[in-house]
Amino acid sequence: MPPPADAPFLLTCRRQPTAVVPVWFMRQAGRSLPEYRAVRGTGNILDAIGRPELAAEITLQPVRRYGVDAAILYSDIVVPLAAIGFGVEVVPGVGPVVREPFRSKADLARLRPLEPEDDTPYVLETVRAVVAELNVPLIGFAGAPFTVASYLIEGRGSRTCSLTKRLMREDTATWHALLDALADLALSSLRSQVAAGASAVQLFDSWAGALSPDDYTRYVLPATRRIFAGLADLDAPRIHFGVGTGELLGLMAGAGADVVGVDWRVPLDAARARVGPGKTLQGNLDPSVCLAPMDVVEAEVAKVLEAGGGTGHVFNLGHGVLPQTDPGVLQRVVELVHAHQRLDG
Amino acid sequence: MPPPADAPFLLTCRRQPTAVVPVWFMRQAGRSLPEYRAVRGTGNILDAIGRPELAAEITLQPVRRYGVDAAILYSDIVVPLAAIGFGVEVVPGVGPVVREPFRSKADLARLRPLEPEDDTPYVLETVRAVVAELNVPLIGFAGAPFTVASYLIEGRGSRTCSLTKRLMREDTATWHALLDALADLALSSLRSQVAAGASAVQLFDSWAGALSPDDYTRYVLPATRRIFAGLADLDAPRIHFGVGTGELLGLMAGAGADVVGVDWRVPLDAARARVGPGKTLQGNLDPSVCLAPMDVVEAEVAKVLEAGGGTGHVFNLGHGVLPQTDPGVLQRVVELVHAHQRLDG
Repeated sequence: MPPPADAPFLLTCRRQPTAVVPVWFMRQAGRSLPEYRAVRGTGNILDAIGRPELAAEITLQPVRRYGVDAAILYSDIVVPLAAIGFGVEVVPGVGPVVREPFRSKADLARLRPLEPEDDTPYVLETVRAVVAELNVPLIGFAGAPFTVASYLIEGRGSRTCSLTKRLMREDTATWHALLDALADLALSSLRSQVAAGASAVQLFDSWAGALSPDDYTRYVLPATRRIFAGLADLDAPRIHFGVGTGELLGLMAGAGADVVGVDWRVPLDAARARVGPGKTLQGNLDPSVCLAPMDVVEAEVAKVLEAGGGTGHVFNLGHGVLPQTDPGVLQRVVELVHAHQRLDG
Repeated sequence: MPPPADAPFLLTCRRQPTAVVPVWFMRQAGRSLPEYRAVRGTGNILDAIGRPELAAEITLQPVRRYGVDAAILYSDIVVPLAAIGFGVEVVPGVGPVVREPFRSKADLARLRPLEPEDDTPYVLETVRAVVAELNVPLIGFAGAPFTVASYLIEGRGSRTCSLTKRLMREDTATWHALLDALADLALSSLRSQVAAGASAVQLFDSWAGALSPDDYTRYVLPATRRIFAGLADLDAPRIHFGVGTGELLGLMAGAGADVVGVDWRVPLDAARARVGPGKTLQGNLDPSVCLAPMDVVEAEVAKVLEAGGGTGHVFNLGHGVLPQTDPGVLQRVVELVHAHQRLDG
């Protein structure tokens, strides 16, 4: 049974008024939960994602525990790449590692279109299994072309993204071909997740904050825009998230998403001025606040709610839940958000 | 012989007009230079810093090669900490590592004031040796309290700074005592460098970009302000630099420096609006541009010069020189900057 169209999360993504501010947490499913650690085992995360029953259970755990307003699929941004055989692993404590990084035009031949039903049937089974049990919307997701490209080119996460930027400036034609191919991967994956029952999608451009506004505009925005345009016919709100993207918020809003994610560095009222009217904001409690005493948590949640301003604000952290977070604190955050009396409600 | 008071770098730090835009590069001394690799050897960086003849030679190398408008002392932000015996190493490829991290109030006893002539005589000898040979100003430097605290508390560099933020919120009295102690260390070190002959100083707050504006204001600004106030009686311009600090530029300007460093994420004209009048800006070419073809380098240098706007702009990279940078490219950047016809010159 699909979630009701008047679910607070979906209404808010569309800037329609709701009785409460909806809340969910990036990485709400994962290491901070004892029930996750109990079922997860020690295997590779890509193996866990390949087991629909396990991945569905992990996806559902935080919804049961916290009563959050949305679930997010337990998956990884490199799943489509791994599925088409590019050769990528996820190493604990390191993140994605590409054995033979993308170096030049010839490597374009190592990319092929994703056939979701054939290449990632387990993802779609997980989506269907989750939706069958869920009473709130499920958010599907994919990695954005720049961020995925940076793993392909650097071989692993890189603070400077210097090899990535070198390729984009040195062989711009290959760069755009690569980003278009990665945009197609993301688009195919996201469309298949929605077809299987996801109610919304989030595009993670975690490393975009490494770019200046000019470089973002020239080298990244076109492919990103294609993804959101390619989702426009679906009845699923589109969320666009990056870290350290304060200078890019206006450009990211222009890429076509309905919701722009904001990290904790930019107060939401300042973010709203940059994003412009007509968009919903998602964020932006500093995840490290959840390690602080409860009076600090309460004060910081109140500040985010106030800056969020009501309609058009999905409460979230500014980045993922830190592994050492006490679930009891997140439980309290959900209570605080749901108890908030909206000034415009 | 001290450098002339009308050195373009010093005049520009004071927003006085000069014939050319001055230029230097963060990490201009170091791994990108073959003459550095020839003399440096394989020993620990703290050992190299402890050898004044070697450290002076390394400091001078980029001035000889590039004809930059300032030298920056070859040193490290953890030198004062190591000198008072806190137990910190610099591990190649990792950065500073603290064997027994700062955990609680009791660890305050492990910090004591720095006596520069006794604790870091080699730093002062290096400064004197450099100044004796140099015909441009020497920039001394220190690590800012937040950034140094983050290494002390995390034990090494941390993208989230989560332990650091936990301490600052959980035991705010200890936090402020720690930051005050680290401010005193930085201040003593900087004053001694100026007394030995440095013409300007730069305070590196490399990790401050992890903080929201509110947290920066509450937890970091007071100690930082004390440092700049404590330097006000010296005839040495004060530079304040951080990475990812787009949202903090106005606050950092308010901390009291004469010059605010800007990374490449914020165009300099936008940065000027945030910093306000009366300050010089330093920056902000993306270091990765120096890995690109020369036509890209030339176009990007021109963009930075145009956004910098002339008087009150010290040309620099937005962060340190990447180790794989071709020195020939930096040489060309210096030529381009010095050849620039200032609109207001």
